[in-house]
Order: sequence, then C-alpha cells, then structure tokens
Amino acid sequence: MFSTFIQPRFGDMDFLGHINNATLALWFETARNPFLRIFVPDLNIKMETFPLIMAHTDYDFMEPLSFQPEVEIRSWIIHIGKRSFTVYHEAWQKGHLCVKGSAVMIHYDFITKQSVPLPDDKKKILATHLIGPQKAPKKK
Amino acid sequence: MFSTFIQPRFGDMDFLGHINNATLALWFETARNPFLRIFVPDLNIKMETFPLIMAHTDYDFMEPLSFQPEVEIRSWIIHIGKRSFTVYHEAWQKGHLCVKGSAVMIHYDFITKQSVPLPDDKKKILATHLIGPQKAPKKK
Amino acid sequence: MFSTFIQPRFGDMDFLGHINNATLALWFETARNPFLRIFVPDLNIKMETFPLIMAHTDYDFMEPLSFQPEVEIRSWIIHIGKRSFTVYHEAWQKGHLCVKGSAVMIHYDFITKQSVPLPDDKKKILATHLIGPQKAPKKK
Amino acid sequence: MFSTFIQPRFGDMDFLGHINNATLALWFETARNPFLRIFVPDLNIKMETFPLIMAHTDYDFMEPLSFQPEVEIRSWIIHIGKRSFTVYHEAWQKGHLCVKGSAVMIHYDFITKQSVPLPDDKKKILATHLIGPQKAPKKK
Repeated sequence: MFSTFIQPRFGDMDFLGHINNATLALWFETARNPFLRIFVPDLNIKMETFPLIMAHTDYDFMEPLSFQPEVEIRSWIIHIGKRSFTVYHEAWQKGHLCVKGSAVMIHYDFITKQSVPLPDDKKKILATHLIGPQKAPKKK
Repeated sequence: MFSTFIQPRFGDMDFLGHINNATLALWFETARNPFLRIFVPDLNIKMETFPLIMAHTDYDFMEPLSFQPEVEIRSWIIHIGKRSFTVYHEAWQKGHLCVKGSAVMIHYDFITKQSVPLPDDKKKILATHLIGPQKAPKKK
Repeated sequence: MFSTFIQPRFGDMDFLGHINNATLALWFETARNPFLRIFVPDLNIKMETFPLIMAHTDYDFMEPLSFQPEVEIRSWIIHIGKRSFTVYHEAWQKGHLCVKGSAVMIHYDFITKQSVPLPDDKKKILATHLIGPQKAPKKK
Repeated sequence: MFSTFIQPRFGDMDFLGHINNATLALWFETARNPFLRIFVPDLNIKMETFPLIMAHTDYDFMEPLSFQPEVEIRSWIIHIGKRSFTVYHEAWQKGHLCVKGSAVMIHYDFITKQSVPLPDDKKKILATHLIGPQKAPKKK
C-alpha cells in the first residue's frame, strides 16, 4: 500500500465548504505516481514508450472532506488482468474514510493504438501491491 | 436531453495529446447546471437551502478526446430514486462517443446532515429528462 | 476583439461563493484559442512545430465573479514585440468588469529551445487584433 | 520562509511535457496555507469571519517545470501595507528557479464588503516572514 499525503488548497473547497468532487480526480492521479514508476522508473515520460492509458475511474463520496487537516490517499492494486490492472484509492481525513474509488489502467501501445499484454515482470511487481479492498487496513 | 458545448483549453491536453481524465469531472459538472436549476432556478446558491450532495461518479474512457474540435456533453436522467437521482453524461467529439459516465446526486439537508425524500414536483420535472442510456441517441 | 462565453461550474465557486482565482487561469487560456489559431490554424498541435511558450501572466481581481450568469471573456492584443506578443483579457459578468489580466507569449522553437522572431505575416494578423487596453470597449 | 513540497501529477503536464501555467495557481494557493493560518489558526474557515480576499496575482515563467522530481514552493512576504500584504512565491525544481510570482491579499470584511486595516498583532506576525525578494536564498 502506498500513502500519499495531500495538503488541500483553499479553492478545493466548494461553496458548501466541502472538497469538490473534481479535486479527487487530481489527488488520486497524484497517488498513482508510484504505479507509473513500475513502468517508467524515473518518471521521464516519453510519448513513444509510455505504456498506460486509462479506461475507467469511479468515486464513492462517503463523507465530506474538509479544507483541513491533511488528507491521506491510500492506494493499492485490486485486480491484475491480462492487459490491464486496477488501482484502488481511499481518501482518509481525521480517521474517516471519506472517498473511495478505482482506476482501470490499460497496458497500451500508443504507436499501434492497441492494448498489449502486461509483461510477466511487471505483473510480478504489481502483484506485490495486490491486496483487494476487503483485506485493506480500515482504521487509521 | 441537455447539450453543453465545451471549448477545450490547451492545458486540458496531457503529454500524450489526450484530454486528461480529471478534465471530464469539470465538464460533466458544468453539464449538470440544468439539473441544478430544477432545484435552484436562478442558480443563486445559498448554503442553508442548497439541496444536493454527490454520492458517486464514474467515467468510462472509450476513445481519447483531442484539443479540437469542440466537445458536446449530452446529459439526461437515468434513474430517479426516493432520495436521489442519477445523471448520465456522454462526451462526443467528431461524431464519436469518447467518454460516458454518471453522477448520483442525493437530495440532502445540509443543516440536519440527512438525506431527504425528493418532493413530487421535483420528481415530475426530473422524469421529463429520464431516458435511460439504452434509449439515448447514439449517433451524432 | 474575441469574445469567449464561459458557463461556470458549481466547483468553480470557493467557500465564499466567489469564483476561485485559479479558475481564471483556465478561462483565460481557453480564451486564447483564437490566438493559437493564428499560428496553428486547425489547432492540430504537434510538439515539433508548436511555436509558443508562456513567459508571464497576471490577474487583477476587481470584483468577485459569481456562479451565475455566464461570463464573457474579452481578449485582444496589447503589444507585439520582435519575438513575443501580449494578450489582454477581461472577464465580464452582469455588465461589470470583474477580472482583467494579460499573458505574454514568446515565439519559440521547442527543438533549439530558443525564442524566434515573429514572422511578418503573423505580425500582420496579430496587428489586426491590437487595441491597447485604454481603447477597449468598457461597457457591456 | 515557508517551503511547500508538491508532487506533480501526470495531467499537470501539457502536450509539450511542461507543467501547465494554470497548475501554478493551484500550487501557489496551497503554499499560502501558512499565511492563512496567521488569520485563521485552525484553518476552520467560516464565511462570516474569513478576513482575506485576493486582489492580484502574477506569474513569471522562467524555465519549464517537468513532471518530476518534486517541486519546492518557497513563499514569504515582500510587502505589508495598511490593508493588504503581498506574498511572494518561487517554484524550484532540480536546483532551478522555474517560476516566480506574487499574490496581493486584502484584509477584508465580507459582511460590509469593505477592506479593513490589518491589526497590529497580525502585522507583527506577517513581519516575521518579510524578506523582500532580493534578500531571498537563491540557490537550493
């Protein structure tokens, strides 16, 4: 499991004082950096070789997030397929699970515009981060 | 069905030349303005009386969206529950359905912090926008 | 002068009910699309040939912008230099000038990483949009 | 001087592989949290008592920022007026000053919609963060 700590900004709050739903898309994307590193270790992204494209994301808003304190995004793998894997995210604040969601990433060749089987060595590394949401630590 | 036309901005493209996933959260939220108007006709939002909170969103990325041309977001209702309704969105560009997704909105009292049954008059208006994704126009 | 009409989204409002300052960066960038078209007429951006890089932006927040109604961004050129030009923007709502600002764009070669003189034909087109802020229409 | 460390996300890069200009507005706003704390120590923002409104921001883009590594935002005060103060920001990456900018914050009463003199005790705290850009540490 990877933890990413996020400092909200004033404008992340909407008029109701809650963190806006679109902000979670930014935070979860930041929290996927460790998974990008599995494919591009130095994160020196080049278009010809970057091998991932997003197929799906979802977000369940369980409790409102506030401007403060710091938010912890916990991220791990919940599924490894032949040509894709699914990252699962939880946003925690003050000991509460506030938002959970997932992102399906396709292993992809941007030149041929085709999905490509995940190589075994990458699958092995991804598997070390595979937990399944039900087995995850639920208390902060 | 409501159509919202969006002019992408340069920075909506990511390094791969595709519209970034988080941008869709912004566009779909803009496209929900007509549904907010059902509850707050002049969109003069006041915290004490604003009656909606988001419970869920999801996004399926089917084809990459580009910087140009203009994107059309088509939005309608696919479910009306006792205390919630679901808005469905499609992002179209050059005659292709590129992204589809939904947003579940809870009818909510921000003072008591409880969900509240949808009043019948609002349900009636929502029902005029109820199509169901399967019945929606699929070709531009 | 180019006019770009923007529909704010709910989350563009911050906790005080004002459009957040960072949103103006998004709107002004969208409003620069017509100036990008002078250099890339079909807006089919390619990294090897894209000729502009931003050197500076500024924003003066004169009156708060609200969620509604629609915002008009008025944009024109206020300076044409040897290797750069400056776009000026105004955000109007309900007949009020709410935010004004500018963006300095350098004519640039991304391969040699050097600024490049503006060609005369581009200067001529830019000049047709040159007004100077003092001569601009101030009343909606 | 306050340092705020930012992990860029994939979508912060634009098509040219540079961090988009609008992202700096987000990062600098996050980096102003320590200055908000001077006025609202627990950052528990309430509309009736929040005392700051933004009057101006500017950004000078000196060198492109990349996706990686982490960016350091250095922030301090460069001016304290009767009813306002100016925060100065620098974004550093790999030992390079890449973006600098400032934000003018007005001390403001949201009920009367008037600027209000800065109280002496707040001025004293702000003064402990006053450096002036010329005296700031320029090497990482």
